[in-house]
Amino acid sequence: MVTMLNVRSIDPAAQDLIKKAHKDGIETVWDRYDKQQPQCGFGSLGVCCRHCIQGPCRIDPFGQGPDKGICGATADVIVARNLLRQVAAGAAAHVDHAYDAVEALELAAQGKIDYPIADAGKLKAVASGLGIDSEGKEPDALALEVVRVAYGDMGNHHNRPMKWVSAHAPKQRLEVWESLGIIPRNPDREIREAMHQTTMGMDADPVNLLLATAKQGLVDGYAGLKLATDMQDILFGTPAPVVTEANLGVLKEDYVNLIVHGHVPLLSEKIVQWAKTLSPEAEAVGAKGVQVAGICCTGNEVLMRQGVPLATNYLAQELAIVTGAVDAMVVDVQCIMPSLSQISSCYHTELITTMPIVKIPGATHVPFALEKADEAAQEIVRKAIGAYARRDPNKVHIPDYRAKIIAGFSVEAIAGALGKLDPVQPLKPLADNIVNGNIVGVVATVGCNNVKVTQDIFHVEMVKELLKNNVLVVATGCSAHALAKAGMMNSEGTERYAGNTLKAVLRAIGEAAGLGAPLPPVLHMGSCVDNSRIGDLVTALANYLGVDSAALPVAASAPEPQHEKALSIGTWAVAMGITTHLGVIPPVLGSKQVTELLTVGLAEVIGGKFYVETEPQKAALGLIEDIRKKRQALGLDQ
Amino acid sequence: MVTMLNVRSIDPAAQDLIKKAHKDGIETVWDRYDKQQPQCGFGSLGVCCRHCIQGPCRIDPFGQGPDKGICGATADVIVARNLLRQVAAGAAAHVDHAYDAVEALELAAQGKIDYPIADAGKLKAVASGLGIDSEGKEPDALALEVVRVAYGDMGNHHNRPMKWVSAHAPKQRLEVWESLGIIPRNPDREIREAMHQTTMGMDADPVNLLLATAKQGLVDGYAGLKLATDMQDILFGTPAPVVTEANLGVLKEDYVNLIVHGHVPLLSEKIVQWAKTLSPEAEAVGAKGVQVAGICCTGNEVLMRQGVPLATNYLAQELAIVTGAVDAMVVDVQCIMPSLSQISSCYHTELITTMPIVKIPGATHVPFALEKADEAAQEIVRKAIGAYARRDPNKVHIPDYRAKIIAGFSVEAIAGALGKLDPVQPLKPLADNIVNGNIVGVVATVGCNNVKVTQDIFHVEMVKELLKNNVLVVATGCSAHALAKAGMMNSEGTERYAGNTLKAVLRAIGEAAGLGAPLPPVLHMGSCVDNSRIGDLVTALANYLGVDSAALPVAASAPEPQHEKALSIGTWAVAMGITTHLGVIPPVLGSKQVTELLTVGLAEVIGGKFYVETEPQKAALGLIEDIRKKRQALGLDQ
Repeated sequence: MVTMLNVRSIDPAAQDLIKKAHKDGIETVWDRYDKQQPQCGFGSLGVCCRHCIQGPCRIDPFGQGPDKGICGATADVIVARNLLRQVAAGAAAHVDHAYDAVEALELAAQGKIDYPIADAGKLKAVASGLGIDSEGKEPDALALEVVRVAYGDMGNHHNRPMKWVSAHAPKQRLEVWESLGIIPRNPDREIREAMHQTTMGMDADPVNLLLATAKQGLVDGYAGLKLATDMQDILFGTPAPVVTEANLGVLKEDYVNLIVHGHVPLLSEKIVQWAKTLSPEAEAVGAKGVQVAGICCTGNEVLMRQGVPLATNYLAQELAIVTGAVDAMVVDVQCIMPSLSQISSCYHTELITTMPIVKIPGATHVPFALEKADEAAQEIVRKAIGAYARRDPNKVHIPDYRAKIIAGFSVEAIAGALGKLDPVQPLKPLADNIVNGNIVGVVATVGCNNVKVTQDIFHVEMVKELLKNNVLVVATGCSAHALAKAGMMNSEGTERYAGNTLKAVLRAIGEAAGLGAPLPPVLHMGSCVDNSRIGDLVTALANYLGVDSAALPVAASAPEPQHEKALSIGTWAVAMGITTHLGVIPPVLGSKQVTELLTVGLAEVIGGKFYVETEPQKAALGLIEDIRKKRQALGLDQ
Repeated sequence: MVTMLNVRSIDPAAQDLIKKAHKDGIETVWDRYDKQQPQCGFGSLGVCCRHCIQGPCRIDPFGQGPDKGICGATADVIVARNLLRQVAAGAAAHVDHAYDAVEALELAAQGKIDYPIADAGKLKAVASGLGIDSEGKEPDALALEVVRVAYGDMGNHHNRPMKWVSAHAPKQRLEVWESLGIIPRNPDREIREAMHQTTMGMDADPVNLLLATAKQGLVDGYAGLKLATDMQDILFGTPAPVVTEANLGVLKEDYVNLIVHGHVPLLSEKIVQWAKTLSPEAEAVGAKGVQVAGICCTGNEVLMRQGVPLATNYLAQELAIVTGAVDAMVVDVQCIMPSLSQISSCYHTELITTMPIVKIPGATHVPFALEKADEAAQEIVRKAIGAYARRDPNKVHIPDYRAKIIAGFSVEAIAGALGKLDPVQPLKPLADNIVNGNIVGVVATVGCNNVKVTQDIFHVEMVKELLKNNVLVVATGCSAHALAKAGMMNSEGTERYAGNTLKAVLRAIGEAAGLGAPLPPVLHMGSCVDNSRIGDLVTALANYLGVDSAALPVAASAPEPQHEKALSIGTWAVAMGITTHLGVIPPVLGSKQVTELLTVGLAEVIGGKFYVETEPQKAALGLIEDIRKKRQALGLDQ
């Protein structure tokens, strides 16, 4: 793993606050990581099985001890089974997220909750993609038709593909998936089946297990990511370029600071709104207002649509509290360190949980229900205002780091910017510049921080190399946070990091779009579920160029993956035919067969493959090499 | 764990074949178990987490090392999270099983497959339970209405209870579950949610996680067990008493021996039928016919309905092949050791996999589809016949052990037998004898073998003690196999093992039912999904006596649990308010809080609790003590 000796993070704000944490006697994720050393080698290799209670079993990777589990499962089976269960868990997380959004759109369209449909245009586009005629229909009625299709997928008891897949996937991909028998029918049914398939005494064929894993990738991509983004855009609006700042320096000493953390915008959208409305109450207690800032993907969601600044990404979530300036941190789902509760108790911060399946002892639970979203949001904002008075100025230290960022690059926003160059065929300028080599290719950097890697280093160093080589980068999730904090999401970043031909293209688009400056070299496309936007862009490019998505000079990378969701997203990208880099080795090395299939064998049947490289520059060069091979195969390069 | 020194099994057939396996150079489950020693202590305690790839993490149970995972999860959180994921996996296995049966009933009712509805009476009973009027409806039409409700549960997008729960659960239980917020809405949605809830950065509240676990127990009980049994009874008939034999001695040297192994009767019912039809083909190759015998719950299914003899239970599945007399072993789903493939290759046995999610390298895959079930069954029977000619007589050794058994005790069959004593209120004789203390109580023994326990010893020794103390035993799954092999499922067993008052009751019922002999002291109620029958019996008794099921002098025990399904079934029993004994410690001891909640705290809110005791006699006495307390509370005893 990439670690700079004794350096936990390349983010100066984080470095600063790690020192403060030590001084304040706060245990952080890095301390706990140190205490976990050495980590279990069996688990790291994936050769530990705890599914049945005859176990635990483990395979001796050195061939001196057991080569089979008690049931007879080999290392290959154990590794493949563990991976399938992890990817299914990641998919379940995303489908559950999407499901909440579908439910919200349904209730909104029925007028039962106060969530007006913000983007009737997106609604029509989604409806049309599903083959629903919008003509003469009110948004609410149309939304209910769309909701019916979504629920229909989740109650599809026929052996036909999910509509969200067949409507949105590239046609050539559908044929590949069909031939492999991996098109999901019903996301919930597939998740249930994967859990069944991985119980004791079920599948013992690593190939069959990996195909099932690929199917879970498609569940994730379409019933998770794509569905969530579509619903959220309809409800809250499709992002358009916004300008704001990133890093903990966005917190303000003289404001009530309220951090939204997690992944779902359903509550945080309301909080952003109520933070403005209740600003006078903050003033009444001596603050200048309420500053909302975001962590993880809830942060990305309200950044993309509302221009809310980013506080920080996953690995520094605890450090936000260590500033002593966060009056409340409200969390919804996913990537929320349980440690936040203990750390909050050392400061004045109100840690507020909101979801029925995320409770943390010591936190205040304000139950979030769509029907009472405004009440919950008000209560939370008022708790933050209330806590402000308890803030101890002696404990406050806000590191003065923040980078300007331009975000909000939905596919629609990108098409909007490019449309200034070619209103009829907005993708043409991008495609042309890829074809002529001004843009060598596109790499999507996604995913998490992982404590095993010096925070942000892999995202930043790899992307520097990619940009220098005229590769356009699009980013989501905590990768986007990392690149934002590093100053790669503004026009200065283009001047500083982009290779000459890429720079020229970004300048031209920036000029044409009326920015008066180049487009950033890294386009922030949103949250982790917004990887669907990258999928849409890839699909649109493939369709425009009339090629399989697997043929495009496009690659993906999760440089610092941490969560099961990252494995699911990566699996979806591979199923799209895309070479997908991982900068942290997932627990598969205990099986030569599985490792070989994931990194080589899969490519022969599905077009995409995983590529593991733990050194950033090398990873960038490896991805560029992959892109160049695809260019050559397309006849773009010699 | 209970092991007799150097004794792997108390089953003499297994003992015999273990020796042969050694002689033949065959590695068995016990050898692999030995090689796995010592097993990982962290995993055994449940304090190892491999959900995210920052890990693996583990908590030091001695308090010298890390007390939190990298994310901050405590031992309590890690243990509770692992347990929830395991119970969700078990529930997923059962729901997937049930789903296949629903699909079969649908296609059957549509006339698309050759599975005539065997039990129109059961169909009407199920329909009536669901509030569907059967009046004047053809079975096919009625079946489709029932199927619609089942599918409706799995596509229920409202926040209302699953119908299969609200229609079948005891009323007082529904109120308890409602108050705890654990009534499942949609099994697939709940499984997805549980997977989400256990990913990194989600629930950190052990109590909330355990309530979610209880919810999964209800998913298992109603959308898994109950639904599967109902569908299968409608399709294949509700079991009625049958007489046959159990243990490997049922294999015949001069017959083609075909073993059905797994859990689902959809294919095995066809195999039983085609084995008879194709008998002449067996005769043509010199055999006297085709002997079908069963392992695990597929064995129980065809035993209960067709009187097919039991070959053996889980732990001896490999030994069946070691007889050298098994010409084909066909497997469907669950509890199938991957090792069967390698062992088959040392004999002439054709190992045949059939399900898309269960493949084993080295096995022959005959794909099973409902639409071509007859073709698949014929092909399999013919493969067995073909293999017979390759049987090596020098390798054949069939241990001459088999016990007579009476099985087929569905609730309907029990009511039928009791109805001879009281045709108007068939439950009255049972209830009266419980009330007057002739029957002290009822214990359901369920679940698996586990290699950690000398095979069958816990089932048999505990049940001996229970019977001696006038406790009636009902059994399913591999527990039923164990008790069958031990001669506890016939009238001689009553004379030999039952206490005086229990014996008198069983004699009276046996006489009245025209058996000319006592009812067996252990009633075989079917497969693991047929634990639903036990649930139905408990529900009927509770309703008859007008008390909560939690108040009944009834307990459950999984003496040798192995599979995640066993944990799910046990969780359901606890949710029913029933004290549920486990003879193998599940991986929870690493959390004092979780252990305390499961064994004590849960009882305060839900009525039931887990009871762990690893010594059979003590376990029996503990269960009897629990039953006596319930009797006292009901005012039955002083």
